[in-house]
Parts: sequence; structure tokens; C-alpha cells
Amino acid sequence: MDAQGEILIQAVPGFPEVDPGTNLGVMISERIDLTDNDIIALSQKVVSKAEERIVSLDTVTPSAKAEELAGELDKDPAVVELILSESTAIIRKDAERSILIVETVHGFICANAGIDSSNLAESGTVALLPKDSDRSARRIRAEIEDATGVRPALIISDSFGRAWRHGQSEVAIGCAGIDPLDDWRGLPDRSGNNLEATNIAVVDQMAAAADIARSKTSGTPAVRLRGLERFVQREDGAGCFPQLRKPEDDLFR
Amino acid sequence: MDAQGEILIQAVPGFPEVDPGTNLGVMISERIDLTDNDIIALSQKVVSKAEERIVSLDTVTPSAKAEELAGELDKDPAVVELILSESTAIIRKDAERSILIVETVHGFICANAGIDSSNLAESGTVALLPKDSDRSARRIRAEIEDATGVRPALIISDSFGRAWRHGQSEVAIGCAGIDPLDDWRGLPDRSGNNLEATNIAVVDQMAAAADIARSKTSGTPAVRLRGLERFVQREDGAGCFPQLRKPEDDLFR
Repeated sequence: MDAQGEILIQAVPGFPEVDPGTNLGVMISERIDLTDNDIIALSQKVVSKAEERIVSLDTVTPSAKAEELAGELDKDPAVVELILSESTAIIRKDAERSILIVETVHGFICANAGIDSSNLAESGTVALLPKDSDRSARRIRAEIEDATGVRPALIISDSFGRAWRHGQSEVAIGCAGIDPLDDWRGLPDRSGNNLEATNIAVVDQMAAAADIARSKTSGTPAVRLRGLERFVQREDGAGCFPQLRKPEDDLFR
Repeated sequence: MDAQGEILIQAVPGFPEVDPGTNLGVMISERIDLTDNDIIALSQKVVSKAEERIVSLDTVTPSAKAEELAGELDKDPAVVELILSESTAIIRKDAERSILIVETVHGFICANAGIDSSNLAESGTVALLPKDSDRSARRIRAEIEDATGVRPALIISDSFGRAWRHGQSEVAIGCAGIDPLDDWRGLPDRSGNNLEATNIAVVDQMAAAADIARSKTSGTPAVRLRGLERFVQREDGAGCFPQLRKPEDDLFR
């Protein structure tokens, strides 16, 4: 893992609107050349569209609890109902910014369970996160392999707010063919001393790197990262789930 | 900010050991070609070395409070003394992992006030964060301009742990010539709807992107990012400080 060359990050050009059932692997591989050494980072919204996770708010019946929280937070009760249905716990309520920070059914801590309405063609609709983004990453990776014979690693990401700092940063919510953490703990540094705590969130960093090649308005959900082959594995691996802190390891719930 | 080309990320090769007083701008510009459109991301450790922020632990006299905390957390009392001297508040104590999560004098929330001993040539020493990394970024940017006539943007970063997720991710602790946040709030998305919350932590994402071009053992503290000229400004700007949440905006202290 030493000498490193140049990393190239390129948004996949000409990505059309994604419909339910779209084969994203084919859509990506028709638009950019891929090798076994590449990594594709894909933003959550198109995966949600392909997986029919777009919900029309007029189909949602808010519970009494959703109505109450919606009043408290000045939010649409139907959106709050969806947030609650996609969550296992409310971590914080932020009335000033009208957000609920929750633990999602997947185990992510994020605002509004990752539900939002940006870049959706139909008004009155919102996108939920994919049901299992690790599984989605494995499926899209297989779709690419079926279409092309090559097997790049796959990352699905979303932009999450952070504690302590303004602004959102892209983090991985699913991956295949790559480990989320590059663990150096116990290995020697350049001076021969043990790196006691170094455990790098490489897949989150790649998700962030991909995002700087995107525009929020230009329709570039898929990004190819090249030059990171030391991280790509043939096996799909365990996905992003091991990266999430268990409640007992987490000081900030 | 629409059509985007390829982003190239390249570690500056052949970076030697950095001594107190080293002109980092010269050191960088002698080793890689630079333009006004580039961004240099520099890891904190070399800036601390150049700015004489390396402390020998045998020169530190721990206070009674440091001794007490050191016992509680199974840490070196001299290190705890330095952490306390670089902090304004203890946010969490983690006895299991022997870390103190603090608010630093700069306003960062991080483990052990960013103090660590990795990649230091002399044993028994630790590196403190630069006193003012925004100022350091402006200075190194000026050093590059003095040496070459060009004025790339400058980011200084460190790897911080995160709430909720295992692993560290690189975040900016100082910058010059670039705004830390790319604020889309109130602007329309592709469907003409307002982006209500979109405020992208672009400089943190660039710091993360630079880090994937590094190795923890190969001596590559400086990384050039190319293809992001839409973010680079002639003015140094306000630095990273505006990115930090004020206590009253922060739900996770």
C-alpha cells in the first residue's frame, strides 16, 4: 500500500432520468468504460428511484404521533409519518431547523431518516433510502459484470449532516467489493512506532471524493474513481454495516 | 457550476522530513507543478513540525487534574496535561479507548485535542495542532506564490473520528483561497424545487479525497487536487472557522 499514482475521478456523462426497475449497472456501463480496478460511486437517489422507493405523500396516513411531532417541528405530517416508519429511534429533535435526527431501520444516524424531495420529477413525492443498500450495491455490481464482464467495486452514498460542523458530507450507505475501513491499528508508522488508533474510513472518503465531481443540478449521480485498485476486492465483502457504531460503542446518541 | 471534467488527485512525490522553520510552500512547489487553479491539501502533522508544535513529553509537568484524568483513562499524565492545555471543554471521556473528546482552543471537537505521536521521528514526543491553521494556510499559500508566482488554494487537514460511525475521516482544520461550504440553500434543483437544506462541506470532502491518495507510511503529506477550479478564489477568504457549529447550533455536545 505504499507508492501511489494519480487518482482520477470522473462523473459518468449523460445519465438520463431513472425509472422504477431501471438496470443501473447497464445504464452506467453503457456510458463510461470500466475495468475490474475501478470503483463506481452512486448517489442514493437514483438507487431509490430504480427500487421504487419514491412515495407519493397523498398516499400516507399520519399517525397521531406523527401529527403531534409535525406540529412541534413545523413539518408535513405525512413526511413525519414516513420518517417514523423508517426509524427505530428518535435521537434528537431540532425544531429550529424542522428536522428529526433518527436512527434508521438500517442503523444510520441521520436527519429525517434520509428522506427528502430534492431532484424528484413529481412534486408531492419523497424518496426513501433503499431497503438494504449493501444488497443494492451487490446487485448493481452484478448487473455491471453481466453487461460487461468486469467487476468494479460499488459504493452507494448519501449526504448526511454531521455533529459539530456545518454542511453535509457524502457517506457510504452501501458497498460491494471494498471494505469500508482500512485498519492500520497495531501496524508500524514510518518511525517504527505502532499506529494505535488509525482506522481510516476509506469508503466514506471515496464517497466524499466522488461528490466533488458532481453537481447538485447537472444529473451526475454516478462517478467513476480510478487509481484505487489496492482497495478493490473480487469478493463482495460484508458491506457498510460493520462501519456503524453499535449503541454501546457510541458516545453521541 | 454545471458541466464538470475529470478531477486528478496526485500526492506530491519525494517529500522529505520537515524541520522547524521549513518553508512548506517552497518544499511543495519544488516537487510538483502548480497553477492558480489547483488546490493543495496538506496534512496537519507537517505543518505542526514546521511550526515547532512538537513537544517532548519530559518537559511537561502534569497538573493534579491531569494526573487524576490520566489514572481514570489509563493515559500518560503528560499527554493529558497537553490535551487540557489545548482545550476549552471536555465533551466526553472514553475510558475504554483511553481518549478524551474535547473542544479545542480552536473550536474543533475531536479526540485528544488532535494530539498524537504517529510519524514523529523522536520517541517521547507528540505533535500539537497548529495554533491557527487558517493563518498557516494563508502563509503557506503566500510562500507558494512567492516561490512560483501562482496561487493555488490551500487546505490543512487532520483525521478526526466521527460520531455514529467507526473510522476516521480527514477534515479541514484550515484553508485559504476556498470557502469551506458550497451553499445551495434556496437554489432550485433540476426539477425547479428549492434545495432546502443543501449546504455541501466541499473543503472537508476535498480533504477526504486527498487522503485516499496518501499512505500512512509513505511520507505523502501534500496532495495536489486538479479540476476543481470552480471553487478556487483569489482572496484567501474567512478560512475554516465559519464551518464550526456554535454550541447553540450543536445538538451533540
